Amino acid sequence: METDVTTELYPRERVGRVREATARAGLGAVLLTPGPDLRYVTGYDALPLERLTCLVVPAAGEPFMMVPRLELPAARESPAGRLDVELVPWDETDDPFALAAARLPRDLARVGVADRMWAVMALRFRAALPGAEQVAAGEVLRTLRIRKSAAEVAALREAGAAIDRVHRRVPGLLKAGRTEHEVARDIADAIIAEGHATVDFVIVGSGPNGANPHAEPGDRVIGPGEPVVVDIGGTMPSGYCSDSTRNYCVGEPPAAYLEYYRVLEEAQRASCAAVRPGVTPEAVDAAGRDIIAAAGYGEHFFHRTGHGIGLETHEDPYIVAGNREPLEPGMAFSVEPGIYPGPHGARIEDIVVCTEDGHEPMNTTDHGLVITG
Amino acid sequence: METDVTTELYPRERVGRVREATARAGLGAVLLTPGPDLRYVTGYDALPLERLTCLVVPAAGEPFMMVPRLELPAARESPAGRLDVELVPWDETDDPFALAAARLPRDLARVGVADRMWAVMALRFRAALPGAEQVAAGEVLRTLRIRKSAAEVAALREAGAAIDRVHRRVPGLLKAGRTEHEVARDIADAIIAEGHATVDFVIVGSGPNGANPHAEPGDRVIGPGEPVVVDIGGTMPSGYCSDSTRNYCVGEPPAAYLEYYRVLEEAQRASCAAVRPGVTPEAVDAAGRDIIAAAGYGEHFFHRTGHGIGLETHEDPYIVAGNREPLEPGMAFSVEPGIYPGPHGARIEDIVVCTEDGHEPMNTTDHGLVITG
Repeated sequence: METDVTTELYPRERVGRVREATARAGLGAVLLTPGPDLRYVTGYDALPLERLTCLVVPAAGEPFMMVPRLELPAARESPAGRLDVELVPWDETDDPFALAAARLPRDLARVGVADRMWAVMALRFRAALPGAEQVAAGEVLRTLRIRKSAAEVAALREAGAAIDRVHRRVPGLLKAGRTEHEVARDIADAIIAEGHATVDFVIVGSGPNGANPHAEPGDRVIGPGEPVVVDIGGTMPSGYCSDSTRNYCVGEPPAAYLEYYRVLEEAQRASCAAVRPGVTPEAVDAAGRDIIAAAGYGEHFFHRTGHGIGLETHEDPYIVAGNREPLEPGMAFSVEPGIYPGPHGARIEDIVVCTEDGHEPMNTTDHGLVITG
Repeated sequence: METDVTTELYPRERVGRVREATARAGLGAVLLTPGPDLRYVTGYDALPLERLTCLVVPAAGEPFMMVPRLELPAARESPAGRLDVELVPWDETDDPFALAAARLPRDLARVGVADRMWAVMALRFRAALPGAEQVAAGEVLRTLRIRKSAAEVAALREAGAAIDRVHRRVPGLLKAGRTEHEVARDIADAIIAEGHATVDFVIVGSGPNGANPHAEPGDRVIGPGEPVVVDIGGTMPSGYCSDSTRNYCVGEPPAAYLEYYRVLEEAQRASCAAVRPGVTPEAVDAAGRDIIAAAGYGEHFFHRTGHGIGLETHEDPYIVAGNREPLEPGMAFSVEPGIYPGPHGARIEDIVVCTEDGHEPMNTTDHGLVITG
């Protein structure tokens, strides 16, 4: 059933825009299998299966979607069913790659394949279109996906509010004597209860595990006076993702921790404040990194400052040294510096959207260390 | 922490076997990013991320694994950490594709890329190894993965027992007046409660939706006398998958349904009975299909009979017309004929493993229609 939300978030004219961008990029067609690119273009949240589903958008000619006959009812009922895209069902003993190729011009020189297409499918398309050089379709799609529409920003705002509500529940879950794993399980339940469709990740890094940015929650018992990094996110029914990190401590933390935590707060604020159109991601990274380095913690901040977010938790633009593509209004990304000197660490993360004259944060819970009972 | 289960299910010598198979296939190396192939070889259940993690197994030379520095602790603690595989960390501003290529012989003519590698990564490897033709690593891995070890069969047996326990709970959940979606949500909870790590799919197809093999559970209210197809599966903590379909009815079903249900039971039994070494998947498919066709329902069975199962829900061997690769002991797959004449349908599905002289079913709940109160 088509809803207004679907139409706003996944407007019907996207297929046409992709066709234009495909032609502009000098590609003969893009081939989009299930994943974030297909969802962006059609709204169809198709399962990745060994049976080929693939939207084909030729630079000249009509778009069509190869669909296994078993998935035809699902495709028709999906938001893709409301588009001017012919659904081409194929049967169990057909070769869908050959069928798709036969509908394309024979002289295709270059085709874009979805960034997340399974390699085995890209190789089948290579055999079916032997004259066509394959390039990453992301180069076409990113020009569209990297600037979020007002409806997409609203979806990210909704996702941010949902994960903020989860962070507000964390003090009630984090008690000395509980294991990271127990707390993580309760947080995962809260991520669903607060409106996400799926839990994407839950990091509960206590004590020394807080100094490992990608620690897996384990059987470690959380002790009094131990700082805990909580980095959590999920995907909303809209398809858009949340991601926010806050820091907690059961009782009073060590003095050394409080010292660098103040530096971290200042650095995160500085990187956020640097966000505006025309500024490079590299400069946003440097704004916080310079503060951390000047305070003597430079070697303890060893990851990039952030990643874009939308239909994927990690997508363009990356906020990292070397990325000099200027920010534009609508770009959405994390700002998440960290300091990890051990035997504990901290990271503060907000999702922000670049606006006409600065940034809008999607996360609004307090940045300060939360002392729990 | 290494456990005996890990060692049995993911034996240390697998990397060496992959190297031998790589050489036999005439490939210079295989490149395995996170996914079922990497887990099969190392036991490492790595997250698929935009930062490259990749096990490189050269046909000649020592295997190594490119790991983002942030993931190095996780990789070290994973089962991959116990193998004779060098972990090669890379930093945020490195090009890990170039670093990997630099460690390989310059004259590589052919490399295998993991079937599920993201196309964008395969294209990066293509640029880093311009002289090497890419082929699907699945051609190498499938020769190993297609025959399950005793430990793998034990893991599939455990998965089968878990999903059987879920099916035994279904009569308590399926009541007239509930929606498909409500029942599906309770089944999903039961899949986790009975020991799975993840819910992979839940089909609750009532009345006309039972005639659509891949129906998504919706807001349809289940009525009395309506047959319901319940096709469910998940992934166990071991990594191995379950998948089983049974049929339920709240009260007495229509007479026409009972008529073809008897045919379906006979067909499913016949396909299972056909399983033994040397028989082709095509013949297993035909054994049941012929019975359905002879009873006049041939046009209403429009999908293949089954799919292999292991670390993926759908993998080789596929039980479909045209597959003439003889069965061997240890091959594991579904046998799941269906009849969908509308306004209802039915499918019976067991996972079976080919043994020395026949088959062992992984699912043991009764095949008959279950009448619920």
